[in-house]
Amino acid sequence: MRTVEWDNGAVNMIDQRALPWKLEIVRLETAEAVAESIRNMTVRGAPAIGASAAFGLALAAMQSESRTIEKLIVDLRAAGELLKAARPTAVNLAWAVDRLLDIATSGEFNDVKDLRELLLLAAQQIADDDVAINRRIGARGAALVKDGATVLHHCNTGALATVDYGTALGVVRAAFEQGKDFHVLLDETRPRLQGSRLSAWELEQLGVSYDIIPDTAAGYYMGKGEIDIILVGADRIAANGDFANKIGTYQLAIMARAHGIPFYTVAPTSTIDLSLSSGELIPIEMRDPAEVTSPYGQAIVPTQFKARNPAFDVTPHQYLSGIVTEFGIARPPFSDSLRRAVAGEDL
Amino acid sequence: MRTVEWDNGAVNMIDQRALPWKLEIVRLETAEAVAESIRNMTVRGAPAIGASAAFGLALAAMQSESRTIEKLIVDLRAAGELLKAARPTAVNLAWAVDRLLDIATSGEFNDVKDLRELLLLAAQQIADDDVAINRRIGARGAALVKDGATVLHHCNTGALATVDYGTALGVVRAAFEQGKDFHVLLDETRPRLQGSRLSAWELEQLGVSYDIIPDTAAGYYMGKGEIDIILVGADRIAANGDFANKIGTYQLAIMARAHGIPFYTVAPTSTIDLSLSSGELIPIEMRDPAEVTSPYGQAIVPTQFKARNPAFDVTPHQYLSGIVTEFGIARPPFSDSLRRAVAGEDL
Repeated sequence: MRTVEWDNGAVNMIDQRALPWKLEIVRLETAEAVAESIRNMTVRGAPAIGASAAFGLALAAMQSESRTIEKLIVDLRAAGELLKAARPTAVNLAWAVDRLLDIATSGEFNDVKDLRELLLLAAQQIADDDVAINRRIGARGAALVKDGATVLHHCNTGALATVDYGTALGVVRAAFEQGKDFHVLLDETRPRLQGSRLSAWELEQLGVSYDIIPDTAAGYYMGKGEIDIILVGADRIAANGDFANKIGTYQLAIMARAHGIPFYTVAPTSTIDLSLSSGELIPIEMRDPAEVTSPYGQAIVPTQFKARNPAFDVTPHQYLSGIVTEFGIARPPFSDSLRRAVAGEDL
Repeated sequence: MRTVEWDNGAVNMIDQRALPWKLEIVRLETAEAVAESIRNMTVRGAPAIGASAAFGLALAAMQSESRTIEKLIVDLRAAGELLKAARPTAVNLAWAVDRLLDIATSGEFNDVKDLRELLLLAAQQIADDDVAINRRIGARGAALVKDGATVLHHCNTGALATVDYGTALGVVRAAFEQGKDFHVLLDETRPRLQGSRLSAWELEQLGVSYDIIPDTAAGYYMGKGEIDIILVGADRIAANGDFANKIGTYQLAIMARAHGIPFYTVAPTSTIDLSLSSGELIPIEMRDPAEVTSPYGQAIVPTQFKARNPAFDVTPHQYLSGIVTEFGIARPPFSDSLRRAVAGEDL
């Protein structure tokens, strides 16, 4: 099944907190419930939370008892704010919400029922597009993964981080589907262990050769010359190519540079935020320190021990070999190539 | 109490696997039991396992039923091999064992009982010296920690990693005892979490201000300009200054260089191995992948998920600002300064 999908007046999603132990589906019937599922990371991954937010807004439209377009828009705006506020860093959330709000405020609708239906269709379109876009990204990026290579990957950017197929792990998957033989090292990605819990689970299913490594071992394997390429995702890419991604990405970029290893981020163009000139402007979410001290409810130290838990970091564009999008690989200078990609120009 | 100490014919040590939850003491009555306690990390930290091995050899001397010096030496050599083989990377283990074997084979003893007693005294001396040396290291290094600074620390190098007081955290402790006001960021240090389980526990006891951070966040805080100095320990230092330390040290060194942050290792001269010209010759222990996938028996992923678990890495000397020893701070060129430190020359 897809990570998130519409099901007869509700949103079904895989509860990613239960993996790799159980494949549990949760059913959400309100925009508030969708916002909470994004906040508590039942669903995570920039493209997946974008599609979830779109379905959340479709739910808000269904729930609203407003009989006029104007009043419906008021309700949609409120739900949109709630959904956008669930997590601050990934731009896909705001992108998906705004795409639906743009339809609602286009002035092209007189009938509330028509608008509700169209909003659902638009949300469905975002979800369907995501899968199609990810397959295009995979096709565009697969050549980066050579036969015999070892790929280092951080966090989870697979089917679970998207509606389906994945971004950086989608590239890995596309290369695997081409019959290439390679190995993937998966950073476990503390504190939430998306690498060991989600990416390893996905590669187990696909049959791709992998090993989990502690985040502390990434430099070690680079130093041994065992890593040929690093592929990561992105939660938001600024106009100059600086990008926010899961905490630990920035230090991988520094290590990649020190070892001369190609370093790519892989993301749909919906992750590009041309309104921000540089990565310094991207808001970084600080999450509950209990995620560090008691991961998934298993206390590893007493609760009074103090910890910090930044969820993302920003990698300056200078460290990037390229940005793999559905329109091809954006190369430096990114201020030019990203603008062309967003315009839908083939790179 | 001390991390490890002699107690009336046995070795008592703090079971570091039980911390921070319980302060448990285990009593070991054979050299084999001491070797196993080193292997299974009941005791860890290069100076602490050195003292433990010395006491283990003293136990072997007590256990041996040999009535001649020659036969006792045979038994001691066998016990020494067992103890040295417990863990390969830290040189302090071999250093302590060889120090006692040198006494046994000096030809100065005719009486087995005399030799047994002297070996115990020598083991006790290694333990006592360790505490005194660590206090001298602290005094020599304290000036590195400035008032108002933020120190980044990796793994555990405190009282628990030594007989008492600590090496890198001993420097922190000495600065704290001088009344300085500063903050310590503790890398949690996956997979065994020595930073969050042991270093945080020690700093809680001392009252030093700290926060645990995931290993993935070290680069983030360097990038924000929040880290003034990085202090780590060492398990073995080669003649040219390359050093082995807990996995994750090498990548911190790379990040420190990229951000212009001073980076020091702190260790007694017993950690220096002049017989190795460079760090490439230091053996790196690979430990059970289950430490990654089921830390402390709490499975975080299914047992069939594959993982790698290198326990140490080697940091080339070019990344080091200095090596803090009991004779002062060794500076580049280390091939010269380390030789002088080992000779007991004031640096």
